[in-house]
Amino acid sequence: MTLEVGVLGYRFMGQAHANAMARLPMFFPDAPDVERAVLVGRNEDELADAADRFGFESTATDWADVVDDVDVFYNLGPNHIHAEPSIAALGAGTPVFCEKPLAPTLEDAEAMATAAREAGDDVPAGCAFNYRFVPAIQYAKQLLDEGELGEIRHVRGRYLQDWLVDPEAPWSWRLDEELAGSGVLGDLGAHTVDLLRFLVGDDDIAGGMERVSGHLQTFVDERPVEGSDGETRAVTVDDAYSAQLEFENGAMGTLEASRFATGHKNDHTIEIHGSEGSLRFSLERLNELELHRDGDRGYETVLVTDEDDPYVDHWWPPGHVLGWEHTFVHENYEFLSAVESGSEFAPSFQDGLAAQRVLAAIEKSDARGEWVTIE
Amino acid sequence: MTLEVGVLGYRFMGQAHANAMARLPMFFPDAPDVERAVLVGRNEDELADAADRFGFESTATDWADVVDDVDVFYNLGPNHIHAEPSIAALGAGTPVFCEKPLAPTLEDAEAMATAAREAGDDVPAGCAFNYRFVPAIQYAKQLLDEGELGEIRHVRGRYLQDWLVDPEAPWSWRLDEELAGSGVLGDLGAHTVDLLRFLVGDDDIAGGMERVSGHLQTFVDERPVEGSDGETRAVTVDDAYSAQLEFENGAMGTLEASRFATGHKNDHTIEIHGSEGSLRFSLERLNELELHRDGDRGYETVLVTDEDDPYVDHWWPPGHVLGWEHTFVHENYEFLSAVESGSEFAPSFQDGLAAQRVLAAIEKSDARGEWVTIE
Amino acid sequence: MTLEVGVLGYRFMGQAHANAMARLPMFFPDAPDVERAVLVGRNEDELADAADRFGFESTATDWADVVDDVDVFYNLGPNHIHAEPSIAALGAGTPVFCEKPLAPTLEDAEAMATAAREAGDDVPAGCAFNYRFVPAIQYAKQLLDEGELGEIRHVRGRYLQDWLVDPEAPWSWRLDEELAGSGVLGDLGAHTVDLLRFLVGDDDIAGGMERVSGHLQTFVDERPVEGSDGETRAVTVDDAYSAQLEFENGAMGTLEASRFATGHKNDHTIEIHGSEGSLRFSLERLNELELHRDGDRGYETVLVTDEDDPYVDHWWPPGHVLGWEHTFVHENYEFLSAVESGSEFAPSFQDGLAAQRVLAAIEKSDARGEWVTIE
Amino acid sequence: MTLEVGVLGYRFMGQAHANAMARLPMFFPDAPDVERAVLVGRNEDELADAADRFGFESTATDWADVVDDVDVFYNLGPNHIHAEPSIAALGAGTPVFCEKPLAPTLEDAEAMATAAREAGDDVPAGCAFNYRFVPAIQYAKQLLDEGELGEIRHVRGRYLQDWLVDPEAPWSWRLDEELAGSGVLGDLGAHTVDLLRFLVGDDDIAGGMERVSGHLQTFVDERPVEGSDGETRAVTVDDAYSAQLEFENGAMGTLEASRFATGHKNDHTIEIHGSEGSLRFSLERLNELELHRDGDRGYETVLVTDEDDPYVDHWWPPGHVLGWEHTFVHENYEFLSAVESGSEFAPSFQDGLAAQRVLAAIEKSDARGEWVTIE
Repeated sequence: MTLEVGVLGYRFMGQAHANAMARLPMFFPDAPDVERAVLVGRNEDELADAADRFGFESTATDWADVVDDVDVFYNLGPNHIHAEPSIAALGAGTPVFCEKPLAPTLEDAEAMATAAREAGDDVPAGCAFNYRFVPAIQYAKQLLDEGELGEIRHVRGRYLQDWLVDPEAPWSWRLDEELAGSGVLGDLGAHTVDLLRFLVGDDDIAGGMERVSGHLQTFVDERPVEGSDGETRAVTVDDAYSAQLEFENGAMGTLEASRFATGHKNDHTIEIHGSEGSLRFSLERLNELELHRDGDRGYETVLVTDEDDPYVDHWWPPGHVLGWEHTFVHENYEFLSAVESGSEFAPSFQDGLAAQRVLAAIEKSDARGEWVTIE
Repeated sequence: MTLEVGVLGYRFMGQAHANAMARLPMFFPDAPDVERAVLVGRNEDELADAADRFGFESTATDWADVVDDVDVFYNLGPNHIHAEPSIAALGAGTPVFCEKPLAPTLEDAEAMATAAREAGDDVPAGCAFNYRFVPAIQYAKQLLDEGELGEIRHVRGRYLQDWLVDPEAPWSWRLDEELAGSGVLGDLGAHTVDLLRFLVGDDDIAGGMERVSGHLQTFVDERPVEGSDGETRAVTVDDAYSAQLEFENGAMGTLEASRFATGHKNDHTIEIHGSEGSLRFSLERLNELELHRDGDRGYETVLVTDEDDPYVDHWWPPGHVLGWEHTFVHENYEFLSAVESGSEFAPSFQDGLAAQRVLAAIEKSDARGEWVTIE
Repeated sequence: MTLEVGVLGYRFMGQAHANAMARLPMFFPDAPDVERAVLVGRNEDELADAADRFGFESTATDWADVVDDVDVFYNLGPNHIHAEPSIAALGAGTPVFCEKPLAPTLEDAEAMATAAREAGDDVPAGCAFNYRFVPAIQYAKQLLDEGELGEIRHVRGRYLQDWLVDPEAPWSWRLDEELAGSGVLGDLGAHTVDLLRFLVGDDDIAGGMERVSGHLQTFVDERPVEGSDGETRAVTVDDAYSAQLEFENGAMGTLEASRFATGHKNDHTIEIHGSEGSLRFSLERLNELELHRDGDRGYETVLVTDEDDPYVDHWWPPGHVLGWEHTFVHENYEFLSAVESGSEFAPSFQDGLAAQRVLAAIEKSDARGEWVTIE
Repeated sequence: MTLEVGVLGYRFMGQAHANAMARLPMFFPDAPDVERAVLVGRNEDELADAADRFGFESTATDWADVVDDVDVFYNLGPNHIHAEPSIAALGAGTPVFCEKPLAPTLEDAEAMATAAREAGDDVPAGCAFNYRFVPAIQYAKQLLDEGELGEIRHVRGRYLQDWLVDPEAPWSWRLDEELAGSGVLGDLGAHTVDLLRFLVGDDDIAGGMERVSGHLQTFVDERPVEGSDGETRAVTVDDAYSAQLEFENGAMGTLEASRFATGHKNDHTIEIHGSEGSLRFSLERLNELELHRDGDRGYETVLVTDEDDPYVDHWWPPGHVLGWEHTFVHENYEFLSAVESGSEFAPSFQDGLAAQRVLAAIEKSDARGEWVTIE
């Protein structure tokens, strides 16, 4: 059986997923056969070009014609069109893989999660938090599951970029609340919240995130419209956020993200301290995990590229490092395998919703100036 | 003229300052002559031993006999005896150098600052925040003063230790609210707050700290009494804290400290992002400053040991690294020079009080579950 | 026009190049169209499987049937079959891309280079030194070409692995002089020599390598035959080598490689000091280049993933790191483009031969115990 | 009993040792009492100033008046005056502590070692290789002695500085063969050779250094005389050297030092690979040791500042880092203790001579263009 995949969105994420699907046969021979069947978008010229480059059989300009017609639907469009097509697809019994954050608003996210629940367990609805699929992160998860770090006391997550440092950097849809929902909080914070939920959120590790104190800031209020003659538009989302967390077991967390962190391009770091050990991870050195285990005196820099490291046996010999894009191959492998076997996939829409609840609580906390309990 | 110095406290800090004074003549020949005149303490045997090793002329068991009799008074005792002897000394016109945090409570700190103000500008009252005197920190301060980092957006300060990770680690006075005032907040957080005030607190940099959200946690509630037969005592202070800050110019800050950060011994790190550059500092590599300046693509690891780096010409050739204790030599040099010339010294008791206000606001915020404005 | 490619070799390198060709259309749309036409090997079952996974149209067991029949011939077999098929292909006017080292012996390498010369400039004969195509290395080359590092004084190249540390690690063809030619010297040293020739070997940089002192060592003389009952075979190649170099301009070099460097998987590092600056590169962090430029005080860690960095605009946004395999995409792009346009490609067979001459001189120097001039 | 110490030399090394002696009572209370009795030098004004700052009781301009008169003689003058005064002191039964390299020529070194042997075991003759006394190095030595790294395969030692990069940097006595003996080879290479002998030179580790291939280079042949009107003088020593080594057990070594390594101030690094583990050390981060032990996957960065680390209990709590100068305190403690008890001290003059033999062999090898056996 070949799975026919329909994909909405043909830019950055469209290419990342198309590439991932294209690479499965050579490296994951037990993955289901996939046909990149339909690419969906609005600009027909750009769409045709993209379909050609990304290897799609056909194109469509209306997702409504597609969601029922394919075996799998990928929703890789901007945040404000995550909800409606995803819900329609699930309503038609079509598995959905949706980019993060799940939705621009908590309401949308809830509706999507409901649709996923109603579609049933054999219709996977995945939220594409790709960083769960970094081998070093999977390895960290194994260690945490085995209790290697003991009782968790501190977690820290930071996602730093600097593409808005220049106040003359142009306005974009990502800076508009209507279109993007939020700024760094949804774009970068969603990744951090999901990774921490994944790593320590289980009941026997740190448990759920219980309450949060948030802080949002917009440093530059309006920006020039590209190509215009001096026109500017308002920035209506956050340029940076920070948050403090408390987990069910009492562990403390601090989160941060910014587009104003001069000198940092895509610097997502996770740090965890437990009673028996600690770990550190940085996305810009994604092949490495820094580990402090019981009996160690310092952190050991582990290159997570050995044959028995997660996913690595599919690729190259030890020390032949992987890149950012490999995380998409891994998540596509897992998601499409779940589709084929009609089994559950994580991170699911429920995971997407759970992350959204944390982000919403951070926003609410910022607005109120007080700690907010996460529902 | 030789300055006769009386020192209260003969343990860790007593030795650090005695050593600093002893080293001045060889490395800072223009420092005032100092006589380690009187060492003050309660246990006469230990005191005699310490006086002998630290090079003091005499000992005393009552500070009240000393504060009026010496040219300078160093208060290096535990936090709860910072206020009374310091105030008495200042009342007698004797300059005071007091260890941090200035006092266990905001009230004490205010009384001490008042005493300092009343003693007059020619009677220096210094709070011994030694990390201001790391050459790399002084160099960072120069760069910030010159505007090299542009408009400050983010500051981050973290002080990690791990000596309480083991729940069987014994109880000590540092874990008692009466004796210590607070836990990591006063012990470690005071250093972080002072460093950030020093580096970016000026009006033309980020300005004062305006409001704060705090989070305190005690992970282990009671601990065994050393040498006892199974007896335990309550831990009544914080094991860890985190905080979010907002500065006058809108810059965001996150602070953290812990005694439960497995794998970290004395890891005090500072990070600052401005619109033109960024910097990072870590106490465990105190000879280095990581700098991202305008036009750079990444951080440059600068070894701050060149001849024209702050204080370095007093020591060794480039690349011959300094240690932790040198910060005490530098601060003693500056403080004693101020005493000799009857001029102001910073960090002063006012700086100590300002830091205390931030710490108090963090505690209050934690208790209330809401942001608190710093007075 | 579509280029039909015949590939000899279907293991590690076979997969690396097949993957590279497969990825060209999506990321390098101006690359020539390529058909993975014939896969050549001896074991028919394995060959059929590999052809299926790697996307080849057909298979063949005799390279002689293939070299004349395809538009391009890739020689990715073990070293001892580099010469004959490559020479045959070139004799037939078929461009050849051959894995490194060019040949197991200097004689073979010379014959191959001669064949390449006779085939003419419009028949590219490339030696697949893929590390030239790391973006950070290309960026380093730009800086060196622009004279940013000034007069070169020191170069250092080291390639460390540890897969033979265990004396019970099994014997393999790589440990046999007949089959492999040499040990680490050809396998790893060839990469280092080529990279240094590429980076500083031009006349206006450090110039050619003039003389060399070599040292080869075999630590474990015999090893168990896998699957045998206690049988062992002799190790007849070097486990490690070191060398000292002198360049035409007087610059000094030190080289090293080992399969006994405990804790290092694939650690290829290059360091260069010039009168105006220095640089460092490590393959295990291949997205980074450490740079010390005129006026700097230390090394700046540059993440070479910006849009205007070499090849990066073909891939992902800044900070989205590439992996080891991307070097193969880049070299296939360049080589196939040269084939299409009938123009020269570097590294050529002449470059392969030049590297071989250095390796041969290192061996000769080791045998004689004296410095040897490189011809 | 108080040891009266006479010291020849009042510049950099004079201060380093005077400081070390001054610090012993406070931190090493069981060290012998020491009186800085006589400071010896030629320029009376400078000498008087130095004696005053360094805490000496008296001065002398002729070492011959001193060597017999004191309990201990420190020879900290330039290399060409190491031999005569040291031999005279030993002839008078006075223990000698001499700076490295032991002598400018092998002949001098041999004469000094003979004098030391004749003086007898109860008259310690020490060569002040201070880097043996870095806590991290002592800790490494313990691990090596315990066989933690297994059979040694590779050692690497590099000492990089950059103070001669500028061709206009002025001439100094260190660049004259008559006065200095050699350039970097004796100044920096001596340290590296001694450290490697100390760490792995024992028979049950890698054993002695057996043979060597050396390479010396002078990049700038003449330099301006400071303060002159365009006058220059010839540089008659090496600006840089490299060497390959073979140890008795077959381990391979590479050594290097340079004063032309742009961006490196005092960067002395040691790396060792054994069959069970590896280690790395860098002088610019002298509180750290990077360790790969059996079962580890990567290097662990160990902060060697715990209470039970060598010498650390004399100083500060964990994580309060030491500096370069502390190595002098440690070696003075050990040497003076040996003097007091009339017992042997290592590194001895024999160790100094052994290092010299390696350096001489490197020079000879460079001159001959062939490997040279170390006598």
